[in-house]
Amino acid sequence: MSLLIQLSVAIAFLLLNGVIDGSNPGDSDEVTALPGLSIPLPFKHYSGYLQGVDSNTQLHYWFAESYGNPASDPLILWMNGGPGCSSLDGLLTEHGPFSVNDDLTISLRNTSWNKFANVIYLESPAGVGFSYGPSSNLSDITTAENNYAALKAFFKKFPTFANHDFYITGESYAGVYVPTLATRVANDSTIRLKAIAIGNGILDRTKNLDSLMYYGYYHGLLGGQLWNGLQVACCSGSSCQYANSNNFLCSHRVRSATNLIWGDGLNLYSIYEDCLKVRQTLAIRNHLQDSNQPLYGTPPCFTESILSKYLNSDAVLKALHIAKQAPKWTICNFIVNLNYQRTYPSVIHFLKNLSSKMRVLLYYGDADAVCNFIGGLWSAEAIQAPKIDDYKPWYINTTYGKTVAGFIQRYDNLDFVTVKGAGHLVPTDQPDAAFRLMETFIGGHSL
Amino acid sequence: MSLLIQLSVAIAFLLLNGVIDGSNPGDSDEVTALPGLSIPLPFKHYSGYLQGVDSNTQLHYWFAESYGNPASDPLILWMNGGPGCSSLDGLLTEHGPFSVNDDLTISLRNTSWNKFANVIYLESPAGVGFSYGPSSNLSDITTAENNYAALKAFFKKFPTFANHDFYITGESYAGVYVPTLATRVANDSTIRLKAIAIGNGILDRTKNLDSLMYYGYYHGLLGGQLWNGLQVACCSGSSCQYANSNNFLCSHRVRSATNLIWGDGLNLYSIYEDCLKVRQTLAIRNHLQDSNQPLYGTPPCFTESILSKYLNSDAVLKALHIAKQAPKWTICNFIVNLNYQRTYPSVIHFLKNLSSKMRVLLYYGDADAVCNFIGGLWSAEAIQAPKIDDYKPWYINTTYGKTVAGFIQRYDNLDFVTVKGAGHLVPTDQPDAAFRLMETFIGGHSL
Repeated sequence: MSLLIQLSVAIAFLLLNGVIDGSNPGDSDEVTALPGLSIPLPFKHYSGYLQGVDSNTQLHYWFAESYGNPASDPLILWMNGGPGCSSLDGLLTEHGPFSVNDDLTISLRNTSWNKFANVIYLESPAGVGFSYGPSSNLSDITTAENNYAALKAFFKKFPTFANHDFYITGESYAGVYVPTLATRVANDSTIRLKAIAIGNGILDRTKNLDSLMYYGYYHGLLGGQLWNGLQVACCSGSSCQYANSNNFLCSHRVRSATNLIWGDGLNLYSIYEDCLKVRQTLAIRNHLQDSNQPLYGTPPCFTESILSKYLNSDAVLKALHIAKQAPKWTICNFIVNLNYQRTYPSVIHFLKNLSSKMRVLLYYGDADAVCNFIGGLWSAEAIQAPKIDDYKPWYINTTYGKTVAGFIQRYDNLDFVTVKGAGHLVPTDQPDAAFRLMETFIGGHSL
Repeated sequence: MSLLIQLSVAIAFLLLNGVIDGSNPGDSDEVTALPGLSIPLPFKHYSGYLQGVDSNTQLHYWFAESYGNPASDPLILWMNGGPGCSSLDGLLTEHGPFSVNDDLTISLRNTSWNKFANVIYLESPAGVGFSYGPSSNLSDITTAENNYAALKAFFKKFPTFANHDFYITGESYAGVYVPTLATRVANDSTIRLKAIAIGNGILDRTKNLDSLMYYGYYHGLLGGQLWNGLQVACCSGSSCQYANSNNFLCSHRVRSATNLIWGDGLNLYSIYEDCLKVRQTLAIRNHLQDSNQPLYGTPPCFTESILSKYLNSDAVLKALHIAKQAPKWTICNFIVNLNYQRTYPSVIHFLKNLSSKMRVLLYYGDADAVCNFIGGLWSAEAIQAPKIDDYKPWYINTTYGKTVAGFIQRYDNLDFVTVKGAGHLVPTDQPDAAFRLMETFIGGHSL
């Protein structure tokens, strides 16, 4: 093809996809009036569906353009975890542009990530939130496949965003979704994947449970007798195996410890916060009778009633273009959680491979007992990237000056960061710190 | 002496001391009008001096009678620590009847311990707060002697309180003052000492520093590299000695760890709170150049300016009957701190002995890195009292129901209790939990 013909074809393609005139096929998904919101918005936002690997799987997304310059600001994909939990939790209670008040009005969040980026909130896999499709074959592998297909569908709907710097981010069990999706995207030269970020990720189940024993004892959640019993049954010299012990007594004591931590009315997702729903922890405890593994379902101390009421109202369903086939929205879907096959007990090998190509941020609210930061630190260390600085505090500016926001261990292409006093939902608990952390990371700067 | 003569002598004594007509020599110390307080008080309170072992030593006290029935409610003595810190911090910012507002008005504290008890706030030793006297011979021994003399002087001033159930309580370095004084009082049959309580006590300096290494790492204040270095240099198998190691490399790394924890602008007294005065931590760090031991002086992130302004005003000095010889009030006196001889590196033997005779409560805000709860738990365990229950959570009622307030390990005559999310000043940080804890303990009930 001659250069001229190539150019003509390229221009025709750009025109067809609305790149030049700035329109996108996704424009029909624009949310033109959001119930409860009474002020005009300084940015556009869209809600609709992205197809997975086949037309039966339709994943709901909500996409908020940047307050700044949407045509050039970076593009972030965000996913909550579970498995089974909705990314609209991220949008509406963590770092999205909107928050739902008790009277069902909508406020704008000062620390929204769309202050500096275009942000896609994707509900995944099928069955989660407003997403629908077959739930018989849910696994880490099919989720990554469907997320990748949905992402490609996003870029078809919004081709003007295809050349933006792109970031894949998420929280909790998205500790699996993010690196598995990023691994596929990294091989796709049409997408400019720059980096990934994971908040309170479950990166290695063994390290998560092993570290929980230390986290529990040194945060006062386990007493000395049980702790000493664990040492006797699970340790040999200074080496301890709690999660994968073959010793019956060790497994029994690990179960006692997880029962005590998970079953006592503590808010495990933010241990210094009160638990609003003590009874819900009983469901967790009952589950623990059958398994050593905690149930990463609905956070036991979290109340979703306002979100549920808002999102399931007819006016909101209509405004967000929710399909008739969509399930009633719940913050976490237990059926998805129970059906889901956890293919990868560890994603450290994915993270190691990714960090050889791009920047990786692992951040942890240090008051979370569900995906505790010690397990995260051990996972970061297991990547064996070269350290490029000492462990040290990082700061934010407050009304009375600079204050410690957490600690950071910087490795080559890999940052491990704690956020002081935050639980599982870092931006909810420490909005200013989370905002600075993400804005700095996306901007390619150092904390 | 015949019975009749004995009785006459006794009555004469009681009359002379005002026991029968309810008046006390201490009545002249009554504070009749407190500057900034605009409402009438439902209780009496007194401020003045109690003589130490000789007339040169005059210890300032502020005594608040109970809201309830002062004639029969229990009597509590409270002391703050340091050494060098004023118990008026306890009165005005923790659990006393009054708090000082920014405009120098006075409010009443809903969770004041004088809701259920008569409470004496004693400034000790000489040089602390408004107390004065020779500062050349300050030590754990002379402090206990002077505190005992002052207590006897209190009962001379207020003989109607001599037959009340009596409790000695305190915080931080009062972890030494309380058991050393209680040991003397326990041998004095004229005083009805029922129990002692210590909040975030420094009970054993070795355990405090040893445990700080674990506390620091498992709260994210130390990174993996320094932690691994500590293990290599200070541990043999599963046994580690950080505080008293003869190994140069171990001592060096322990110093690096304490420098990192104490020197980075963190609010060590409540690690999830912001530090209001980052620069003050530099003074602590400079001190650490010369010593492995942190300086238990003015809390580095605490602002005392309002208290200082209020207490040093002419009107307040007069209302509280402050002597002309008294120093200008400061929350902590660095000179006292530096001159003070710490006679007892551990008070576990005192506590062991006391717990054989009376109830002992050791409570810890679990977010304090200065006197961390792990060191407290190890000290409680070292008392070797029989366990009478499993480690378990305790609860308080809030507006939305029962919530975990902390954890408790109950031994025979000894309770070890954590207060969730509280720092060094437990009643300041968690007033409702602290109130329930102390009311329950004084009442002889179980949490």
